[in-house]
Amino acid sequence: MSEIKNKKPEGDRAEKTREALSRLRAGMAEVGADAVVIPSEDFHDSEYVNDYFKLREHYSGFDGSAGTLLVLEADAYLWTDGRYFLQAGTQLRGTGITLMKQGEPGVPKLMELLRERIREAVGACFTVFMDGRTVSSTLGTAMKNSITKEGGKAVLDRDLAGECWEGRPELKATEIFELPASSTGMTRAEKLADVRAEMAKYSADYLLLSDLMETAWLFNLRASDIDCTPVFYTYTLVGKDSLTLFTLDGALPDDIKAELKAEGTLCCDYNDAKMTVDALPDGSRVWVDLKKTNYAMTSRIALTCDIIDRPTPVEMMKAVKNDVEIASTRNAHLKDAAAVTEFIYWLKQSIHSKPLSELSAAKHLDDLRFSKDGCFDLSFPTISAYADNGAIVHYEPTPETDKALAPEGFLLVDSGGQYMDGTTDITRTIALGPLTDKMKEYYTLVLKSHITLERMRFLAGTTCREIDEVTRKPLNERGLDFNHGTGHGVGHILSVHEGPNFITKGPRAASEMVPGMITSDEPGVYIENEFGIRLENEILCVDETDSESTSGHDGVPKSKVLKGAGSSNRESRVYAFEPLTLVPFEREAIVKDMLTDEEIDWLNSYHQKVYDMVSPLVPKETAIWLKDAAKPL
Amino acid sequence: MSEIKNKKPEGDRAEKTREALSRLRAGMAEVGADAVVIPSEDFHDSEYVNDYFKLREHYSGFDGSAGTLLVLEADAYLWTDGRYFLQAGTQLRGTGITLMKQGEPGVPKLMELLRERIREAVGACFTVFMDGRTVSSTLGTAMKNSITKEGGKAVLDRDLAGECWEGRPELKATEIFELPASSTGMTRAEKLADVRAEMAKYSADYLLLSDLMETAWLFNLRASDIDCTPVFYTYTLVGKDSLTLFTLDGALPDDIKAELKAEGTLCCDYNDAKMTVDALPDGSRVWVDLKKTNYAMTSRIALTCDIIDRPTPVEMMKAVKNDVEIASTRNAHLKDAAAVTEFIYWLKQSIHSKPLSELSAAKHLDDLRFSKDGCFDLSFPTISAYADNGAIVHYEPTPETDKALAPEGFLLVDSGGQYMDGTTDITRTIALGPLTDKMKEYYTLVLKSHITLERMRFLAGTTCREIDEVTRKPLNERGLDFNHGTGHGVGHILSVHEGPNFITKGPRAASEMVPGMITSDEPGVYIENEFGIRLENEILCVDETDSESTSGHDGVPKSKVLKGAGSSNRESRVYAFEPLTLVPFEREAIVKDMLTDEEIDWLNSYHQKVYDMVSPLVPKETAIWLKDAAKPL
Repeated sequence: MSEIKNKKPEGDRAEKTREALSRLRAGMAEVGADAVVIPSEDFHDSEYVNDYFKLREHYSGFDGSAGTLLVLEADAYLWTDGRYFLQAGTQLRGTGITLMKQGEPGVPKLMELLRERIREAVGACFTVFMDGRTVSSTLGTAMKNSITKEGGKAVLDRDLAGECWEGRPELKATEIFELPASSTGMTRAEKLADVRAEMAKYSADYLLLSDLMETAWLFNLRASDIDCTPVFYTYTLVGKDSLTLFTLDGALPDDIKAELKAEGTLCCDYNDAKMTVDALPDGSRVWVDLKKTNYAMTSRIALTCDIIDRPTPVEMMKAVKNDVEIASTRNAHLKDAAAVTEFIYWLKQSIHSKPLSELSAAKHLDDLRFSKDGCFDLSFPTISAYADNGAIVHYEPTPETDKALAPEGFLLVDSGGQYMDGTTDITRTIALGPLTDKMKEYYTLVLKSHITLERMRFLAGTTCREIDEVTRKPLNERGLDFNHGTGHGVGHILSVHEGPNFITKGPRAASEMVPGMITSDEPGVYIENEFGIRLENEILCVDETDSESTSGHDGVPKSKVLKGAGSSNRESRVYAFEPLTLVPFEREAIVKDMLTDEEIDWLNSYHQKVYDMVSPLVPKETAIWLKDAAKPL
Repeated sequence: MSEIKNKKPEGDRAEKTREALSRLRAGMAEVGADAVVIPSEDFHDSEYVNDYFKLREHYSGFDGSAGTLLVLEADAYLWTDGRYFLQAGTQLRGTGITLMKQGEPGVPKLMELLRERIREAVGACFTVFMDGRTVSSTLGTAMKNSITKEGGKAVLDRDLAGECWEGRPELKATEIFELPASSTGMTRAEKLADVRAEMAKYSADYLLLSDLMETAWLFNLRASDIDCTPVFYTYTLVGKDSLTLFTLDGALPDDIKAELKAEGTLCCDYNDAKMTVDALPDGSRVWVDLKKTNYAMTSRIALTCDIIDRPTPVEMMKAVKNDVEIASTRNAHLKDAAAVTEFIYWLKQSIHSKPLSELSAAKHLDDLRFSKDGCFDLSFPTISAYADNGAIVHYEPTPETDKALAPEGFLLVDSGGQYMDGTTDITRTIALGPLTDKMKEYYTLVLKSHITLERMRFLAGTTCREIDEVTRKPLNERGLDFNHGTGHGVGHILSVHEGPNFITKGPRAASEMVPGMITSDEPGVYIENEFGIRLENEILCVDETDSESTSGHDGVPKSKVLKGAGSSNRESRVYAFEPLTLVPFEREAIVKDMLTDEEIDWLNSYHQKVYDMVSPLVPKETAIWLKDAAKPL
């Protein structure tokens, strides 16, 4: 889990931001714009974006991963959430931009502030510019309607902020490469046939893919247009007998282009996607997920076509991994387990012998990971949070906050890698030395919660929300909880965060958990000004229906079958989870008496498996240490 | 309050319905329709409609005021609400149509049943026809999106049910007439100037009026295209310097047409409205209330114009009556009070001397009303509900249910008239003879609730919802409540139900109560299988800020000022109500001990006013009776 960040020299940051803003305001005056809204997104609602899209950072100086900037004639406002209040407060200093702390009492939302301004300008038709390509169709439509309703005007077809950015980086393609069949398990043709079968169910004439991960998955192609997520800027339009792939100039090497052409794929320029989509025959039935597709791309097709607005079939297909993808992912996890195990051993040794900090420890882990075969990127910037920094849920170390490590207490490390055979995500909370009783108690509670999810067995039809509830119980019973999801889907050599399998509270978790899904299991507790604990494995959902014993087919003991509220109507197939992550937990942080016999059995079996699988892959001293770290409780 | 109903001979009703359905199904087969949805509305979301629009009645035989019919290839379903379960059950017998009792557990909603069918027809693109003119833009868009999302197809641009109706009545215009200045208080030009000032605030280039009442109010014109609501089928398009009135062929007499032309109004045919609106210049800002305007009329302008989607300025202007409208309405209420007082006297005499029934009593009241100067219609069909029928909230007597009256218990009569000077709505629950203690106790509780609203004083900014809460208190404190609104706005020689002043629960009551609004005050209790009580006056909201005493300027005592939750931010002006309805309550049904001194004072003052104002207008014997009926408690 986490967000990306590029560090810039602080120096003249505020000065540069003020210059950028004054250029933008000159542009606003020229076209009669009263306000410009600058979101953080690219054209595909990506979590991480190419530098070309870092408009909000350019005009505010704030480089956190989430935030929306509103620039008015004389003032400007930046909305961001709790994890960035500190950082934004520092970075906005001297820029003249007011920090709007989202969710704090009395802080108006963007639309509320805009509404106020529109009303004040009664009769003058207050005009708001926002690039309709950087906002989803659903959100763009809602904002346009709100602005117009209040008497204002929304201009969504012009990138005013982009035009006024002097020295804006180019959106340059990185070279697209093809994944081997050994890690994909299905050819493009096979995937396409499945997609078209789904399209036929909904009588769709066309399917538009906007999510970059979906095109990458469908074509078995990857690239490096975005850090940490090996994708390329693209749209795909699937017809009943046609297939068009839109990519940036220079992205497709000739051999792949030739291959695609031979398969009947039309390769077009990225910038022609909108025109092509706009020109679809009147009355066509076009499948497009309006929540994920940008306003500019979809607002015009809705006029002449029927839009089938639902998650694309690719979303579910890529979430449910096939056997080859699973086998391939297992490899990646083994290599990753070796890297993290070596890191933990190194850390526990080095803490007594040399000065270490959050950043230097993270750097060592990153180096270990990159030394593994096929590791070509991190899956997100490594989180390394010592002591009380661990209590800040989304803390990422920066040179300004970097904390020295001492041989005591917890270092929370959340990290992952992109390998040519899979994507990993793991959190371990590591004891650097003596722990207090409170630390041990809370560590054990988080571990209980973690094990509860790992051991869960449940009937087909169980939703991610139901799974979330049960997982939180051991913590909830002690009056504890954590303010983030219990788990998220993990892509296959794609984004480390993918849906629809979000194990969390609320409507986002309505999806059923089905075999083949890979999800994180990462409960935590965060004690402000003291410490934070999070324990995360990736787990694979498996069908256990025909397994007689209470041990899963991976030999790790499971709990009784969870029967959800709606279980009477459900199929009688029984599902369970299998851990893909293979790194030991902290024996010295566990209060054995707080675990049930079943939990101890599970932990001992898991540790045995970790030792068996990982010890052959690590240096001898690490293996010796691991034997001890993984011995039965 | 109430709904309209035209009685048909029962005889071969089912046979006729089956024939109609089979003609419709032949038409469906011809065009490939799998389903036809037939709502009850006309093109303007009117409460009552012209016979031309009674498609649902034609294809189901059910003539209640609310219901939606779904016709499929082999089956058909009619959804209606609780007040019509009995009637619909009878009328659907033998038609093959299944009654869907809205709100009953396990009864799917229309969209749920449709979704099921669309899914069953997977891949076959199940096609649903519905006339997009008979559904609001908001609802039509939502239905189209749902149907398409599931893989079905929605055809909204064809009136298939209308085409297949053999012998469909014509939509024939009735003659439009002009109201005298003495009852409107403002000329068209003055109203138009106010409307354009509001349009300027929102930078609107055009305003489209679809609600029939809004055009009638703006032009000071009325007609009889619909029973009980003196309006005509029309659209109005207000431009910054242009004004277009669309009416049915033959609706406008030559003199009015000439007058309108002289004023610069373009008079066009009703059927040209859509074309005109579709042809508005690209980029125009068009003010249109999408919740009240039909899908077909608005779906295409949204493509090229910016839609300002909010209640039209006319809605509020017509809700806040001017001094002339108020004075004129007072006249109507005086005449109406005379009619109802005569009726009550007659009833109390006749009950001992001749056979009476709910219907014959209602007929006598209607005759009395029509005998008054300027009464040209009822404002809704008279509700006359005896004994346990009074407990059915929306009961209307029919020849099949007509109950004989006996000299005991309660007759609940809810009725109103359309006069050339105003619209009335009154409910009295009349004692026909001895009452039980329970009846008296409940009557007194309802009266307390009624008086609570009449006496209320509140700060500017108080919402209708807040007023509703306080009004229900005397009943709520006894564990009682009523399942309908406390009050609704009343039009001026227009619909007896108008917004935005709905005194009720929920979001519909978000509007503030402001001086000039005329609203009903009609709490009730309904004891199943025993009796029903409802007591309704129309009340006028007045500004009492400068009134020193606790008596209102009408001399009727008021309560202390209500301070709502948000009152600290409110203006300090104080508002109150003044009753327009002047008919006595039932002294013999009141348990004096249950009333506070203030309530008794209010009732005595009110009764004194009733006697003073009404006795000169009724025959001598009635006046003598009234003196006694209105004497102090």
